[in-house]
Amino acid sequence: MRKTTIEEWLADLASDKPAPGGGAAAGMNAAVGAALVSMVCNLTIGKPKFAEHEQVMREALAEAERLRAEAVQLAEDDAEAFSGVVAAYKLPKGTDEEKAARTAAIQAGLVDAAEVPLAVAKVSAEIIRLSGRILDGSNPNVLSDVAVAASSAKSALESAALNVDINLVSIKDAAQRERLASALNEALQAKVQAEAIMQAVAKRIRA
Amino acid sequence: MRKTTIEEWLADLASDKPAPGGGAAAGMNAAVGAALVSMVCNLTIGKPKFAEHEQVMREALAEAERLRAEAVQLAEDDAEAFSGVVAAYKLPKGTDEEKAARTAAIQAGLVDAAEVPLAVAKVSAEIIRLSGRILDGSNPNVLSDVAVAASSAKSALESAALNVDINLVSIKDAAQRERLASALNEALQAKVQAEAIMQAVAKRIRA
Repeated sequence: MRKTTIEEWLADLASDKPAPGGGAAAGMNAAVGAALVSMVCNLTIGKPKFAEHEQVMREALAEAERLRAEAVQLAEDDAEAFSGVVAAYKLPKGTDEEKAARTAAIQAGLVDAAEVPLAVAKVSAEIIRLSGRILDGSNPNVLSDVAVAASSAKSALESAALNVDINLVSIKDAAQRERLASALNEALQAKVQAEAIMQAVAKRIRA
Repeated sequence: MRKTTIEEWLADLASDKPAPGGGAAAGMNAAVGAALVSMVCNLTIGKPKFAEHEQVMREALAEAERLRAEAVQLAEDDAEAFSGVVAAYKLPKGTDEEKAARTAAIQAGLVDAAEVPLAVAKVSAEIIRLSGRILDGSNPNVLSDVAVAASSAKSALESAALNVDINLVSIKDAAQRERLASALNEALQAKVQAEAIMQAVAKRIRA
């Protein structure tokens, strides 16, 4: 994905190919959010006027770069996330043992398939928190970009959550279901902060 | 932008270059939304099971393709949107006449600069409405992608709205301000529909 042109990637997304799809789109939206956090940091760092925020901005930049790389990687991983489930469905189901082995393989595949969108949700939540951390120290000329970063990461978070849910409903192991749902729920808490960041920025623009 | 690789474009977005920035990011998020609508249509069209929705899906596909091209074009236009304002600020301000001409040029530039994000907001609203139109007829295997499309377009819409607002606050002509604000407000109505689409899809996934 990373070496594809924007035009080609969008055409692949639009096509009837199984991947990229909504999972990769969520990863891309998270990457856009992280990139905008980096941009705001880069346009704030080194300016004497914002010297008091220099340390926060430098740390945020390092974290945003890491999160962008992770988001792109997860967008690429998404294509393979479901391949284990697809392979498991193709296993033989002639005998009772084969049926049991197939069901177990499908179930294990579903848990694995839920991990990628869950990771996208976690990365997106981190990007939202990072947007919140730079909000007060940002160069005011790019304040709106902090809000766009939070908005893009929020879209990634809620999109990834849907993709986790799709797998969750088919997982029969209650303990696994509980673990995934609880981790997702924790990530989803960041939605409220994303809304708050957008409102704070809108208020300052109109002030 | 369209011939840039994903990796390079994200790096440009993250850098301290003046463009691409939040405006281009909003255009990209809109393009991702439109591409996902196309994907859902492409995975529904031609399947006998969904024959009754064939006509709606074919029309939606054509519209989604048009909206994706428009969104990419607007993301590219965004870099130039503010150049008129920047040029106007550099005009001479020695005499009273020069001052008046400069102020008039800045004001005209601000109105022009608001048009690009306003167009992104309108395109995003159209993508949300299109997601709503395909919701019931979509191949259920890609139902979540309809919600991801709406979510991505909603992020584009609210991001573009902030970029319109930034220009609006500096525009002195009340009639122009009124016209832009009212057009933006109309586009923003689609946010409610985007939320409703996401909730409807989440409900069906868990059903």
